[in-house]
Amino acid sequence: MTERIHAVETVDVRFPTSRHRDGSDAMNPFPDYSAAYVVLRTTDGAEGHGLVFTVGRGTEIEVAALRSLGAMVVGLAVDDLVADPGALVQRLVGDSQIRWLGPAKGVVHMAAGGLVNAVWDLAARRAGQPLWKLLSDLSPEQLVAQIDFRYLRDALTEQEALALLRAAGPGRADRERRLRAGGFPAYTTTPGWYGYDDEKLVRLCREAVSDGYRLIKIKVGGNLADDVRRVRLAREAVGPEIHIAVDANQIWGVPEAISWMRELSAFDPYWIEEPTSPDDVLGHAAVRRALAPMKVATGEHVHNAVMFKQLLQADAVDVVQIDACRVGGVNENLAILLLAAKFGVPVCPHAGGVGLCEMVQHLAMFDFVAVSGTVEDRYIEYVDHLHEHFADPVRIRDGHYLAPTAPGMSAEIFPATLAAYRYPDGPEWAAA
Amino acid sequence: MTERIHAVETVDVRFPTSRHRDGSDAMNPFPDYSAAYVVLRTTDGAEGHGLVFTVGRGTEIEVAALRSLGAMVVGLAVDDLVADPGALVQRLVGDSQIRWLGPAKGVVHMAAGGLVNAVWDLAARRAGQPLWKLLSDLSPEQLVAQIDFRYLRDALTEQEALALLRAAGPGRADRERRLRAGGFPAYTTTPGWYGYDDEKLVRLCREAVSDGYRLIKIKVGGNLADDVRRVRLAREAVGPEIHIAVDANQIWGVPEAISWMRELSAFDPYWIEEPTSPDDVLGHAAVRRALAPMKVATGEHVHNAVMFKQLLQADAVDVVQIDACRVGGVNENLAILLLAAKFGVPVCPHAGGVGLCEMVQHLAMFDFVAVSGTVEDRYIEYVDHLHEHFADPVRIRDGHYLAPTAPGMSAEIFPATLAAYRYPDGPEWAAA
Repeated sequence: MTERIHAVETVDVRFPTSRHRDGSDAMNPFPDYSAAYVVLRTTDGAEGHGLVFTVGRGTEIEVAALRSLGAMVVGLAVDDLVADPGALVQRLVGDSQIRWLGPAKGVVHMAAGGLVNAVWDLAARRAGQPLWKLLSDLSPEQLVAQIDFRYLRDALTEQEALALLRAAGPGRADRERRLRAGGFPAYTTTPGWYGYDDEKLVRLCREAVSDGYRLIKIKVGGNLADDVRRVRLAREAVGPEIHIAVDANQIWGVPEAISWMRELSAFDPYWIEEPTSPDDVLGHAAVRRALAPMKVATGEHVHNAVMFKQLLQADAVDVVQIDACRVGGVNENLAILLLAAKFGVPVCPHAGGVGLCEMVQHLAMFDFVAVSGTVEDRYIEYVDHLHEHFADPVRIRDGHYLAPTAPGMSAEIFPATLAAYRYPDGPEWAAA
Repeated sequence: MTERIHAVETVDVRFPTSRHRDGSDAMNPFPDYSAAYVVLRTTDGAEGHGLVFTVGRGTEIEVAALRSLGAMVVGLAVDDLVADPGALVQRLVGDSQIRWLGPAKGVVHMAAGGLVNAVWDLAARRAGQPLWKLLSDLSPEQLVAQIDFRYLRDALTEQEALALLRAAGPGRADRERRLRAGGFPAYTTTPGWYGYDDEKLVRLCREAVSDGYRLIKIKVGGNLADDVRRVRLAREAVGPEIHIAVDANQIWGVPEAISWMRELSAFDPYWIEEPTSPDDVLGHAAVRRALAPMKVATGEHVHNAVMFKQLLQADAVDVVQIDACRVGGVNENLAILLLAAKFGVPVCPHAGGVGLCEMVQHLAMFDFVAVSGTVEDRYIEYVDHLHEHFADPVRIRDGHYLAPTAPGMSAEIFPATLAAYRYPDGPEWAAA
């Protein structure tokens, strides 16, 4: 009997994080970290979990998109689906009517990504492997077949991608061993949320260093005097050896980003993240030229591989920040990892939010084992919020993500959490 | 008594255009032209109509977004709203939680645009003016105050925008007179839909010329031999003096676009439209350099002013194709018109679909009267589908759009049409 997807379930789940200003930044002062959550259920009782991270209002729109696209998944044969998730990408992202609402961007693209990620979760569970290991064991040919090269060939051809993956073949087993032993470097954003006062900022900076982090991140962009004071306090708290990245969350235009960051350059920022609109490839390039050698980072809002391609072609970024939930799922992130490798730019994933750490660690670890072959200048963002709601939460030791061992992509939220925080009728919200 | 918005109504309306392959192209073989339709109702019985054009599946997602954002409009004071629609843009596009789903792109951005356009429709109705006239009579200062310059100043400052508008002051009355007398040049896409056979193509090409059009458009990109034959037939049918634009609807990557269009260059195409991904600014620039002096056009899928800014900065386009429903409404299109004027690139709006001709003509006519001051190299796309469903349909005479005279933005669809084509329960669909 052919097993099939018999149901696609969705949940609007929201956590009232704005009450303590966890996650606050210059652009987003009061986020309620949320997710449009999705579960694929098969006729033989297996499950694939995925989610799209959101920050409160509008999650219901993302859930509507997951429902519409999810209807295209119901009835598909599980063996075909897990053998070739790329075919589903074509079906969802390439749908000739739905693509008008993108193409390949925003609400519908993230919904496609959520479903595609759920398929990879299902595939990894069936294989009995954590996703990073499943991906690392695929052949170069299998990996390349999962990528849509239509709009990428002027920067990366199938042949170049194969050559990159084959070149990373030697040493794979050794890197896997090192990963399982010591994990992958993390950096922490916990000290630097915009809504925290100076005392809390300094205390959390010191804790981060004693917890083993070599890179921390501070939110900037509200008021220049505040930024100067906060970044100086952070620098004094961590000393000269620890990297301090700063993150403006898109608050500036190009000229403003340049002049503002010149004021902060005295504190040796490791990178400036999201100095302006995530759509502004040429703007990022101008900021990078003006502030060199300061690094420029972006990616959490970069909506697809075509945009990452241009950021790399234009020499606009020093750090590529992939996100597990922004683009069209694992497949498009494979393309972005290979583009970054082709251009020699390190990937430091965006994480935090709801489940982003859990999901994206698999992609960074795959990148280390099977693509870039190094952890030099590479860090996965870490924020210590909400992990207690996940069935396979991230494990951090001495400033490193430990490699997941449970089968899947680690996106599963406990049923009790989904029930408690379901919006608007879960008891955590109904009581508010 | 302060009048307020007391209701925001939405309708999912779909026309079964795929049955005759009207609107078919290489990327979109079977579109069902549709709209997420919205009506603002005020406490004193006035109305503002807007819509987001879609092509079938997924319209329900756009309607969900209109409902979510529409809830933020209910209760607002009408006088404030129509005096400053830009404040609503900030509220909808800048909402700190909803912007995670964009920012400024895709489903949520088009919903914001639909609501903003409905406010302008309401404002123009209250003023008793067609929108093009209302806009043309605003002062340079009033117009500039309606634009968000945050991410645009590296290409266009408030001062430069004011200077452009002031420079267009002389001659405004004369241009308005010429517009009312002779209209604005149109081009027609009616002959060139991908699903039409050769006989229909040739017949419609000849009719277009005898109807007074000087520019027609042919869809390309499926099969090279077919394209060569179809464009040759079109050229033979219209003779050497009529412009033939070709439109690939994003089907190609960059190298393929260049090689394919070299094969079609023998037939003197006036422009190549959407040669590749609408997100690929650098790709468009590469195509343009390789094919010069052939013109490159794009815009119907260019999701915001930051992308248009870059297309202009990178010398990537010869023709800016604004769309009434893709970006954040009239306000963002004002920014795009001013950017195009700054860079000296003509604006030839995308239209067709459902209501796009009706709405975008107002923007092109405003551009002529108050910004660019010329119709040279400027044409509004025209397709003769579905106008019979509009209360104030476009009027075409001798290849020109005649200036609307009814108050508003011409977006209103007849209630009987909404009832008949409402999806999925209207009789046109329930019977299918």
